[in-house]
Amino acid sequence: MNSEINRRGFASDNNAGVHPEIFQELMAVNKGHALGYGADVYTGAAQALFKECFGDQTETYFVFTGTAANVLGLSAVTRSWNSVITASTAHLEQDECGAAEKFAGCKVLTCDTDDGKISPEQIETHLHGFDFEHHSQPKVVSITQASEMGTVYTASEIKIISEFVHSKGLLLHMDGARIANAAVSLGLPFKDFTTDSGVDILSFGGTKNGMMFGEAICFLKPVFTGDFKYLRKQGMQLASKMRFISAQYTAYFRNDLWKRCAEHSNRMASVFAGQLSQFSEIRITQKVESNGIFVIMPEAVARKMKDHYFFYPWNERISEYRLMTSWDTSGADIEGFISLLRKELAV
Amino acid sequence: MNSEINRRGFASDNNAGVHPEIFQELMAVNKGHALGYGADVYTGAAQALFKECFGDQTETYFVFTGTAANVLGLSAVTRSWNSVITASTAHLEQDECGAAEKFAGCKVLTCDTDDGKISPEQIETHLHGFDFEHHSQPKVVSITQASEMGTVYTASEIKIISEFVHSKGLLLHMDGARIANAAVSLGLPFKDFTTDSGVDILSFGGTKNGMMFGEAICFLKPVFTGDFKYLRKQGMQLASKMRFISAQYTAYFRNDLWKRCAEHSNRMASVFAGQLSQFSEIRITQKVESNGIFVIMPEAVARKMKDHYFFYPWNERISEYRLMTSWDTSGADIEGFISLLRKELAV
Amino acid sequence: MNSEINRRGFASDNNAGVHPEIFQELMAVNKGHALGYGADVYTGAAQALFKECFGDQTETYFVFTGTAANVLGLSAVTRSWNSVITASTAHLEQDECGAAEKFAGCKVLTCDTDDGKISPEQIETHLHGFDFEHHSQPKVVSITQASEMGTVYTASEIKIISEFVHSKGLLLHMDGARIANAAVSLGLPFKDFTTDSGVDILSFGGTKNGMMFGEAICFLKPVFTGDFKYLRKQGMQLASKMRFISAQYTAYFRNDLWKRCAEHSNRMASVFAGQLSQFSEIRITQKVESNGIFVIMPEAVARKMKDHYFFYPWNERISEYRLMTSWDTSGADIEGFISLLRKELAV
Amino acid sequence: MNSEINRRGFASDNNAGVHPEIFQELMAVNKGHALGYGADVYTGAAQALFKECFGDQTETYFVFTGTAANVLGLSAVTRSWNSVITASTAHLEQDECGAAEKFAGCKVLTCDTDDGKISPEQIETHLHGFDFEHHSQPKVVSITQASEMGTVYTASEIKIISEFVHSKGLLLHMDGARIANAAVSLGLPFKDFTTDSGVDILSFGGTKNGMMFGEAICFLKPVFTGDFKYLRKQGMQLASKMRFISAQYTAYFRNDLWKRCAEHSNRMASVFAGQLSQFSEIRITQKVESNGIFVIMPEAVARKMKDHYFFYPWNERISEYRLMTSWDTSGADIEGFISLLRKELAV
Repeated sequence: MNSEINRRGFASDNNAGVHPEIFQELMAVNKGHALGYGADVYTGAAQALFKECFGDQTETYFVFTGTAANVLGLSAVTRSWNSVITASTAHLEQDECGAAEKFAGCKVLTCDTDDGKISPEQIETHLHGFDFEHHSQPKVVSITQASEMGTVYTASEIKIISEFVHSKGLLLHMDGARIANAAVSLGLPFKDFTTDSGVDILSFGGTKNGMMFGEAICFLKPVFTGDFKYLRKQGMQLASKMRFISAQYTAYFRNDLWKRCAEHSNRMASVFAGQLSQFSEIRITQKVESNGIFVIMPEAVARKMKDHYFFYPWNERISEYRLMTSWDTSGADIEGFISLLRKELAV
Repeated sequence: MNSEINRRGFASDNNAGVHPEIFQELMAVNKGHALGYGADVYTGAAQALFKECFGDQTETYFVFTGTAANVLGLSAVTRSWNSVITASTAHLEQDECGAAEKFAGCKVLTCDTDDGKISPEQIETHLHGFDFEHHSQPKVVSITQASEMGTVYTASEIKIISEFVHSKGLLLHMDGARIANAAVSLGLPFKDFTTDSGVDILSFGGTKNGMMFGEAICFLKPVFTGDFKYLRKQGMQLASKMRFISAQYTAYFRNDLWKRCAEHSNRMASVFAGQLSQFSEIRITQKVESNGIFVIMPEAVARKMKDHYFFYPWNERISEYRLMTSWDTSGADIEGFISLLRKELAV
Repeated sequence: MNSEINRRGFASDNNAGVHPEIFQELMAVNKGHALGYGADVYTGAAQALFKECFGDQTETYFVFTGTAANVLGLSAVTRSWNSVITASTAHLEQDECGAAEKFAGCKVLTCDTDDGKISPEQIETHLHGFDFEHHSQPKVVSITQASEMGTVYTASEIKIISEFVHSKGLLLHMDGARIANAAVSLGLPFKDFTTDSGVDILSFGGTKNGMMFGEAICFLKPVFTGDFKYLRKQGMQLASKMRFISAQYTAYFRNDLWKRCAEHSNRMASVFAGQLSQFSEIRITQKVESNGIFVIMPEAVARKMKDHYFFYPWNERISEYRLMTSWDTSGADIEGFISLLRKELAV
Repeated sequence: MNSEINRRGFASDNNAGVHPEIFQELMAVNKGHALGYGADVYTGAAQALFKECFGDQTETYFVFTGTAANVLGLSAVTRSWNSVITASTAHLEQDECGAAEKFAGCKVLTCDTDDGKISPEQIETHLHGFDFEHHSQPKVVSITQASEMGTVYTASEIKIISEFVHSKGLLLHMDGARIANAAVSLGLPFKDFTTDSGVDILSFGGTKNGMMFGEAICFLKPVFTGDFKYLRKQGMQLASKMRFISAQYTAYFRNDLWKRCAEHSNRMASVFAGQLSQFSEIRITQKVESNGIFVIMPEAVARKMKDHYFFYPWNERISEYRLMTSWDTSGADIEGFISLLRKELAV
């Protein structure tokens, strides 16, 4: 069991721990009393940083999980008779156990995608039945940046989507669980490919990039904020000792910690992919644009590798696996994996 | 603003920070990689401590908030056509913004109470309409220990309630947001007044007694566990870096940290109440059995006091206020309050 | 079994059948084709009658059941974090199996009442916690006219309630499952004690007063209508052959059929109560203001009576029973009941 | 407007009125008193007819709409974390405004289909993530018989699906809004292609084939019945004067009324399709196996035709239209349409 504790791997960027600078900030704010539920000064300060980053209209609410950020953000701008359109690979569709349907009461409609990204043409196939009471009314499109397949929308792709979406009277939501990795990949400030590209609501993640817990829902436009506090509370997402989420975000923005972490994990993914591409038995199936690498490898080899490194199958039918790097992935992690892989492939 | 940061008070036990021993444990587990979502060894270890504490049948699931612990625990054993019976003062009724109704779809029925506790006689008034499809079917009784009024049920009171509740085919849920304060007050191990007194499901709090975040849902009897993991995930309460909740509970049980913290806050409440009772203008309205003190004081005086110490009105019509002590309440906090109060009353 | 088919009684006004004039209208509209879902001319015509009756702003939507009328009408003007305030005896609270909680997600708060009516003073006890995200936000007050206890609010009582409710920023809903009986009791046009007395949303019943099925939700003020069609459809209440609800309402308003039916049942209740009051063993517990009579009678006698006439216990602890008259209650029904009762009491 | 009243068409089988034999039965049961909410003898008698038809284990519950039959039937066997798999064309997916998501809280997953039918291979693409708490758990497959495209599953196709579905631990639901048309098309008793082919839950429609209102939920296997009454009530679908649904079903089964109606409408569809196929400008896009005909015709022609006959576009992009026949479609309806069409095409 003990060896398990220390076994490293590429299972997910949330298998990594908390960055020391985050930890220091948690300690720094752990002094004396602070009002609960976000009425403390640390929370106001963190919210101000979001305004700096995303624009003055930005209203930010902290919650605990990425699922909550997505579901509550979408709930804020929908009624139960609406539908939400997203990629077939989206976390919202595949990995949230139907939380959007349960909590928002909405229908989730999907666009098939190979690379995790969707286009206006695909979205349009769901845009019918407007004003027809028998049909769920399309209201929000949700895109993921970086996508679940590690790919990244360019700012101009996002702008094209948002213009299309707005022209149809819908809103654009971005699931930014890995938005830092996308920003680094694009070499752009957050604002360029969110607020300035027409995103209305953003789930801004932190946990996968060095934080302990806590996600942010950012209303970039004044589409809905007044009553959101009730939705968050009723959604069981109001933190009593809120300062311990806020402080993490403060540290996350200070000296671009988010950037340093994401640059590291993206670079490690790039290095890792380079190493993997030397093997003819391995096929990389997606562009490596952030911190995820998708590979097809012989199943027997994968089985052996998993005795030493944690990682998950993505598509078992074709023996496809996902390898995620994180802010703490080391060169040794990659070298160890590659050298073991070389050995196993040689067998 | 700065002085605000440091202003201490008696607003709530969640205004206090994180106990150093908890913090140390958080740092201790922040090493290397750990599987996400509770598949790590720290979580298994913490769950084992709950079995030790509450009995072998205990199945424990960690969530983020007390509201989530209550709502998901109740959701686990109800269907939407059931009703839940609780005190009119219960957190579930007053302070969760209707989360139980929204998520479980259930009706919440209340028993009027002055001291936060309810009796079988009161519960019985809601036990009718069984098998009658027009009427929500009573399914769970929820009691709060210690209650929102700072009072504490004795083990025998709980046993009488549980026997009554079970005889009617219902289950007994306990909201234990302040269960440590109750245990200290009763001088009993947790198990005596929970599992052994017939409680079926327990929300075991930690945040109000020195933790940073995280609450536990304990199924003390095998009433429902198999599918609970889906409910927690769909309820947006599955922590990705779960080790950072688990570790806190491990520290909380180690060397009876929970007990030391609760003993302190209860003792401070007792001392505080003793001091307050010297003033003829102040009336203590509830038995001080844990860490809450309810007082009626002149409104003008209260207003002045609130400029220096945070605390909340309870019943504005009668100028009643709530003063909560916490694991970090100091003698100086109390002395300061009392001396200012003396001054204000003398005016 | 056959005798059961014909056994008459006072169980409920919905045990009576369909009035012949309603039936004739159903046959009259059963000609050729009509567009489904309310796009037919019969529906437009019936909606116009509601405007005549309740004022030009009235928007009317037909649904199937009284529960649906209440729940969807309330859902239209609430979000899940709101609360609805009503009498402890209300159908909404006692007899809808928690449909409001399930569908609207709201909390239902009750005012204790002996006679089925509530007052501003009682409503006010629930009006706190505004703007406090921990607390469900009060949004609608629902009163029942005639009440479940057969009592009737005067127009001026309703006006006082609506003014109070509006002054607090809430809306007033009326459950009018037996509104015809109330109108007859008051000797007033519907509009006087609804639209003109400040009611915002009305469930206008018909089934209990001679219709086959179908209820109407009337938005008397433009509080919400634009999107209501989606709510009705998603609420599974959109009738495909809508003309067969609409036609019933057309017949119901024609030549004041509603009035003739309600006058009859109210008069029968009055006669019945007069007869019952001759027995010293029987105590009438509520004012007989519409078509319900509440009586305490010896349990053994009630048991015998129930072998011959259907009726329901109201409060078994005190041997209280409810006797409802309907549009088809005959003098013979009452005489038969009274003469049997005389016999049983003499035993 | 008056001409509108009488304008006939092929818009939907629910544009037709009520069959005279149904009407007679409604009148026949409109005598004296009957207990409400299904406790009457007529309801028991109708339920017994369902047992005769579908087997002794069949438990039948009446509701108002087809949407309610689907949603409540599915709700009975799912929890909110489950998913339901159906055709992309299913009523459940396209035409119920998200009622399943709202009420059951479930995720609805779809299989793309051209002809309204789905196969085990398509279903299988959704069967993954079992026991994985992040993923909605597949629980029910829903097929439509006859399908929305007018096609019909053979008994052996259904058996193959049910065996597959059961082998994976799921249940099979059939939306039988047009089941009578399917039975006639197959020339089989209902039981052969439902109970005996492995269907677990059936929405048995009547409104589209001559009834006034009312649908039946049949639990063909004892998968769930005990508590269903609460679900129906909370779902706002419990009819107070239930005898008026039950009686319709009694008439519907008597002397095979359902069969006579469906035979007629199927025959009319066949005749109609035969006539339409003479025009080279018209293309029939689906097999005509029940009472629906799907045709591509020149848009300008369709526009003209719609001035005289009601019918709906199906796929506007390709100028595809749906023509439905019903129990009252006459030879003259078809001749009139065809002759007008001939004229318009000649222009």
